[in-house]
Amino acid sequence: MQSDKSVVRDLVSILVTKGLKHVVLSPGSRHAPISISFYNHPDIKCHVIPDERAAAYFALGIIQETMSPVACVCTSGTALSNYSSAAAEALYQELPLILISADRPMEWVDQGDGQTIRQAGLLSAHCLASLSLDQNDDHADVRWFNQREINRTWNLATGTPNGPIHINVPLREPLYQWVEPAEEYPLITVHTKPEQLIAEHKMQEFRSHIRSHEKVLLIVGLHHPDAALSEAIGTFSLLPQVTVLTETTSNVNHGETISCIDRLLMSFNNHEQLDFVPEVLITIGTHIISKKIKALLRKEFKGAHWHVDPAGAHMDTFKRLQEIVQTNPTSFINALAENTESTSDYHQKWYNAHERTASIQAEVVSSLPWCDMKVFGHILPKIPNNTTLQMGNSSVVRYIQLYNINNALNYYGNRGTSGIDGCTSTAAGMAVASEKTITLITGDIAFLYDLNGLWHQSNISNLKIILINNGGGGIFKIIDGPRSTNALEEIFEAKHNLNGQHLAQHFGINYAAASNQDELEKGMDWLYGEGVKILEVDTKSAANDEELRHVFKEVKERIHA
Amino acid sequence: MQSDKSVVRDLVSILVTKGLKHVVLSPGSRHAPISISFYNHPDIKCHVIPDERAAAYFALGIIQETMSPVACVCTSGTALSNYSSAAAEALYQELPLILISADRPMEWVDQGDGQTIRQAGLLSAHCLASLSLDQNDDHADVRWFNQREINRTWNLATGTPNGPIHINVPLREPLYQWVEPAEEYPLITVHTKPEQLIAEHKMQEFRSHIRSHEKVLLIVGLHHPDAALSEAIGTFSLLPQVTVLTETTSNVNHGETISCIDRLLMSFNNHEQLDFVPEVLITIGTHIISKKIKALLRKEFKGAHWHVDPAGAHMDTFKRLQEIVQTNPTSFINALAENTESTSDYHQKWYNAHERTASIQAEVVSSLPWCDMKVFGHILPKIPNNTTLQMGNSSVVRYIQLYNINNALNYYGNRGTSGIDGCTSTAAGMAVASEKTITLITGDIAFLYDLNGLWHQSNISNLKIILINNGGGGIFKIIDGPRSTNALEEIFEAKHNLNGQHLAQHFGINYAAASNQDELEKGMDWLYGEGVKILEVDTKSAANDEELRHVFKEVKERIHA
Repeated sequence: MQSDKSVVRDLVSILVTKGLKHVVLSPGSRHAPISISFYNHPDIKCHVIPDERAAAYFALGIIQETMSPVACVCTSGTALSNYSSAAAEALYQELPLILISADRPMEWVDQGDGQTIRQAGLLSAHCLASLSLDQNDDHADVRWFNQREINRTWNLATGTPNGPIHINVPLREPLYQWVEPAEEYPLITVHTKPEQLIAEHKMQEFRSHIRSHEKVLLIVGLHHPDAALSEAIGTFSLLPQVTVLTETTSNVNHGETISCIDRLLMSFNNHEQLDFVPEVLITIGTHIISKKIKALLRKEFKGAHWHVDPAGAHMDTFKRLQEIVQTNPTSFINALAENTESTSDYHQKWYNAHERTASIQAEVVSSLPWCDMKVFGHILPKIPNNTTLQMGNSSVVRYIQLYNINNALNYYGNRGTSGIDGCTSTAAGMAVASEKTITLITGDIAFLYDLNGLWHQSNISNLKIILINNGGGGIFKIIDGPRSTNALEEIFEAKHNLNGQHLAQHFGINYAAASNQDELEKGMDWLYGEGVKILEVDTKSAANDEELRHVFKEVKERIHA
Repeated sequence: MQSDKSVVRDLVSILVTKGLKHVVLSPGSRHAPISISFYNHPDIKCHVIPDERAAAYFALGIIQETMSPVACVCTSGTALSNYSSAAAEALYQELPLILISADRPMEWVDQGDGQTIRQAGLLSAHCLASLSLDQNDDHADVRWFNQREINRTWNLATGTPNGPIHINVPLREPLYQWVEPAEEYPLITVHTKPEQLIAEHKMQEFRSHIRSHEKVLLIVGLHHPDAALSEAIGTFSLLPQVTVLTETTSNVNHGETISCIDRLLMSFNNHEQLDFVPEVLITIGTHIISKKIKALLRKEFKGAHWHVDPAGAHMDTFKRLQEIVQTNPTSFINALAENTESTSDYHQKWYNAHERTASIQAEVVSSLPWCDMKVFGHILPKIPNNTTLQMGNSSVVRYIQLYNINNALNYYGNRGTSGIDGCTSTAAGMAVASEKTITLITGDIAFLYDLNGLWHQSNISNLKIILINNGGGGIFKIIDGPRSTNALEEIFEAKHNLNGQHLAQHFGINYAAASNQDELEKGMDWLYGEGVKILEVDTKSAANDEELRHVFKEVKERIHA
């Protein structure tokens, strides 16, 4: 018998599956869905202690004896305040105390109701995590949030150091309704130290997973350039059952990795999409730019996702996170690749497709009129080898991802937040610190916004700015939502007739403009002459969005022709 | 030329010594002590960017290029708000961005002054640490705080993961006064992974430190029972140059460790105190109960303190923390002990003294009249082997520490916070979870306070409570401050005439009382018969504080006789 509230079943079931054995309950009513669910769970021993202060300290004694987490459950109101002393004691004794409070619905706080206080975060001074679960669990994403966060906070309580956590559970009436649960609850497990991976035979398990599956996908997100990691991934990418997707910001360029995710995915028909979906997914690095891979895998991927991160972040990009490998990704990937054999064609099939889309796209682009897409095709090959590219947000970075990575460049972009507010400044800062040439490719909105990134007294000569001016935020013409409104140009694009000429004069920077292919070719040669320069490429008159859609359509059609 | 404000010199000098090379300044006045100090520092390259938003993003570019921390410095007021975007970007790109804001003095916030906003914690949503330094640095402890916290936050910014930190620096006028600094600034370094310890030859360095010094002191604080650690420390404790101090709550019982710190230290004359002070200090575990060792080492210890903690806590108990070894203490201690030779007598001298104080104290106590100290001498040997002792706060745990540890017991006490509010509850919780007998020794105030720790429905029979009732908080008669006031009994002791008899009846618990040695002997035999029992030991009529002082005095005199 479990509560009919899925937020409660998620909480109870995940904690029990994680290994909870003892629950200390204090009487009350608001917490009935939780307390009765624990009380009726065959794997839980309940202890009833009326005074919550005593209850939480009582739990500490059980933890000291069992060296395992123990949960306390209290009703709403000042009941929770009484957990405060034991929370502090648990923090400093490093004991995994799980304090669970039922709460009134959030919308009733400060409205004069009984036993209603500001519970969320009340114990945060002495807890490793303060979580308020979302009671509105009709939406599948809310359940994903609740389940993930229950996992995350348990993992924190049992991490290094162990310590207390507080989980607050707002609950609407009716409270006394029950179901017989038959669900499975997703677990996220953190594997921390190398010795633990070995001791628990977990590394062996990971390896045999790789051996026994036909489709293993590795996606590398945002990552600083790291030669050893790049090499390890390069070797891994050659395995028959492995496909590796990278992005410019991955800075991974070895072996047979696929660097243009969107180009490949846009060429797929429905059958290929499903065929591409892996059985095992591994991720390294943080933010992934490609929306298409996120959309596809969030919808279709049903396998196990392992995230490799030395910091152990619970980054569940695809809503299927199962294992967090909190270790050095280079050694993990090297260890995974050992003694692997496979007859799978997963690697070859998609690497071939990747190469075919590249050559077909090149043909299609060559016949395009002047437009953003074409401009990038001209610019990118002209950027000198062994230099660094700073990519502005947000259409610039997406256009660049449609062209194969140049192994001789480092790629950077502010993709941690994808803001437009500092692209020029970051490029200027890098130029000051670097002996290499830094090329910033930026759109007009990002450039105008971060103008003061050029206002400084440093004596730099190695910054080359390519300003793609299409007269407004062209990205919003490409994505669907804004196009469907009656204010695309006003509210989304910020359409304008400004250019960079006077601003370049203002800062005393050399300036040239290009509004056709010939001027662009000459401009690129001029740009890499001496000094800081701005080359403004005018594509305002072009049908940039239509040309881009044309490219996607043509590539897809020709590859299936 | 550096600011005459030591808070600023601490900040600038520690960051530079830690490895800071680039500072991005934005103009202003309040931050002059900081900006001018950086500007004149020979190891710092300053960049001036007027717009703070651009400045912080500019710093990100330098970090991306150099993979090292970069600091930004801004003046007070909304200037700081402009760091917000780059802080978020740095968090998600995992870049060590050090955001430093000058602030108005804290007392002027919300008083209508110009450029004065609520700066402390303004960026906390996206920073790994938000630190407000203390401008009142005339007090030596404030400098210790500032220096430690600057170290700690730098270590966080450069830890796993890297990320942004915010350091807020309130500054009073006058701002424009300068000195030529000639100070040394204490550094705290964190050594994390085993591979790092090896790669940086740090383990070798630690080992050669142990070999080349005559006096190495290891103090073990609060720690869960851990057989492997206890054994490692036991082996380490036999080294000629090593003295190991443990406490009951250390749960370390191997080799030749010294478990009664206060007893030993109280027997010292001035010369011995100084002779005892080590050259190298190692700590394991968290809270240390002995106030005397803390007082002695805080005053006299001038060597290097290494704290071994898998969680990497910056716990600077003795104000001399230099190295945090963020690794498993068992393997660290085992590695330290390898191939060590020494002709030092540091171990033998103090272990002998420890044994002599034990036997002298036994003589002295045997001739005491009925009092708390004598009562503990009777109780402790009667606690059955292979059981667990829960020690109440706070005089109980201190009395117990005056008697040698019994290797066959586990010792617990709520020493994370040293609160009296949950001692009974924790013992009750442990009794429920344990198959062993749990003995709780508690004072009367802690017992009365946590009465509801006995209010539960669990069917336990293995809890034995020894209630030492001396009629109030006897601890306050022992420490000096309260004795010097005119309200010792009212405000500190909470003197009372209550006892446990009716309360035992209330909870249906068997009860007996003892107010002399004969009754106590019988009571102890009765206590370990079947069922939950309370044995109340009445020492209200005794001169408990005077007898304890007498013991200390006698032991010291006789050992030097």
